[in-house]
Amino acid sequence: MNDISLVQYNLVVNMFSFTIGTMGAAAIFFYSKSRDVLPKYRTGVTLLALVSAVACYNYFRLLFSWKDAFSIMNGVVTATGIPYDDSYRYADWLFTVPLLLIALVLVLDLPARQARNRGIILGLLAAEMIVLGYPGLITTRTDARWVWWAVAMVPFTIIMYQLYVTMAKIVDAQPEAARRLVSRARFATLLSWSFYPAIYLLPLAGVVGTAALISTQIGYAVADMVAKAVYGVLICAVAVSKSQPAVAVAPETRLGAVAPG
Amino acid sequence: MNDISLVQYNLVVNMFSFTIGTMGAAAIFFYSKSRDVLPKYRTGVTLLALVSAVACYNYFRLLFSWKDAFSIMNGVVTATGIPYDDSYRYADWLFTVPLLLIALVLVLDLPARQARNRGIILGLLAAEMIVLGYPGLITTRTDARWVWWAVAMVPFTIIMYQLYVTMAKIVDAQPEAARRLVSRARFATLLSWSFYPAIYLLPLAGVVGTAALISTQIGYAVADMVAKAVYGVLICAVAVSKSQPAVAVAPETRLGAVAPG
Repeated sequence: MNDISLVQYNLVVNMFSFTIGTMGAAAIFFYSKSRDVLPKYRTGVTLLALVSAVACYNYFRLLFSWKDAFSIMNGVVTATGIPYDDSYRYADWLFTVPLLLIALVLVLDLPARQARNRGIILGLLAAEMIVLGYPGLITTRTDARWVWWAVAMVPFTIIMYQLYVTMAKIVDAQPEAARRLVSRARFATLLSWSFYPAIYLLPLAGVVGTAALISTQIGYAVADMVAKAVYGVLICAVAVSKSQPAVAVAPETRLGAVAPG
Repeated sequence: MNDISLVQYNLVVNMFSFTIGTMGAAAIFFYSKSRDVLPKYRTGVTLLALVSAVACYNYFRLLFSWKDAFSIMNGVVTATGIPYDDSYRYADWLFTVPLLLIALVLVLDLPARQARNRGIILGLLAAEMIVLGYPGLITTRTDARWVWWAVAMVPFTIIMYQLYVTMAKIVDAQPEAARRLVSRARFATLLSWSFYPAIYLLPLAGVVGTAALISTQIGYAVADMVAKAVYGVLICAVAVSKSQPAVAVAPETRLGAVAPG
């Protein structure tokens, strides 16, 4: 473990804390919202609360591991010899990523059988992607990291394709008011997910040592907040919008105009 | 880090503890109230709960950092060499201040488009203000602190102007019963917000060393409680008042008089 500066140390501490706050707040928000949507969307929105709560816990673990890895004396940060362990991120993703995909499927009103099949397939692919990424994280060999990255990119690409292309069709089947929200959720998914393979490659792109350590931690924290809290707000908004009485979501009504008759 | 007296040490510990209790209680209160208001005010009141919960967490962090920074032996407090880090306050504000402004906009019943635009603009200005304040906090140079303070005062002044002048117009558009509450929320906002730039300048006003450290911590804790819990109670009261059946908010009824007929 490299020695780092106090500014770098505090930057990571503050970023983790910010993520803890965001995820905790998101968990309360989604839990609250799960009571306000139609019963059929309740499970989907509750899953968003679970994912955020688990992520909040995960960032506590990362924060404690980070603090254990360094000691501070007279403003100087030195490595304690206890390695900082962020491989737990994979356990978190193994739990949360399939649930996020299932939440998406649940609020899209797919026919029951199609929803279940799609949820299971996407969930399994996500689990496979994460399991395949893990060996590349813990290896110290550059070539092995490349290989695992490439292998994990297979399920990643299938999921991205499924979400992007298939969801384009689903968007048209949504009610008017939900269409733009579903479309945004689709882009938020693509954007936030594309962070992960990029961050994974940082050490291979010549970013090594302290710079790689700090930028990886910050990068994953940002990606996790977008992929869980921001994405969750969009999915949640889809469920809320589809839970309004039909008249309330008509565009004229939303803008405050009075409909004739 | 200066050595401080046991009384000063305990004063800060007790103040942080008091803030933790207040923010935690406020979070539960607002969450509970969010179930009692009309659906259209629910998100606004829920945001107050999130803000208080995040602030509660933040004060736990500050308390632990404070305790790490000092050790007590035979009644004598000495600095451990681990710097007390309250820069996390900025991460907290970055999250909570925009949400507080959005909560205000949501309970004021502005037309949808106006509400969204105003919420986004005020939220962005608040974020900008906080980001600009941060470099001045971490610098040790007095002149740089002045410059960042002055720069951050630009968005601060715009927000204050918006809230003060624009809200004066909005007050008149509120139902009779909510008018006084909205007016009070307006003053609570101005009062509590004006604390922050004042506390920021303490080190420049000749308050240095231990005195600056202690008074800054106490000052921010008081300002945070007013800006979040007290302000939140007022905003929440506006939402509750506007959720009563129309007859209950008619002035005669509130005064207990019996309307003729």
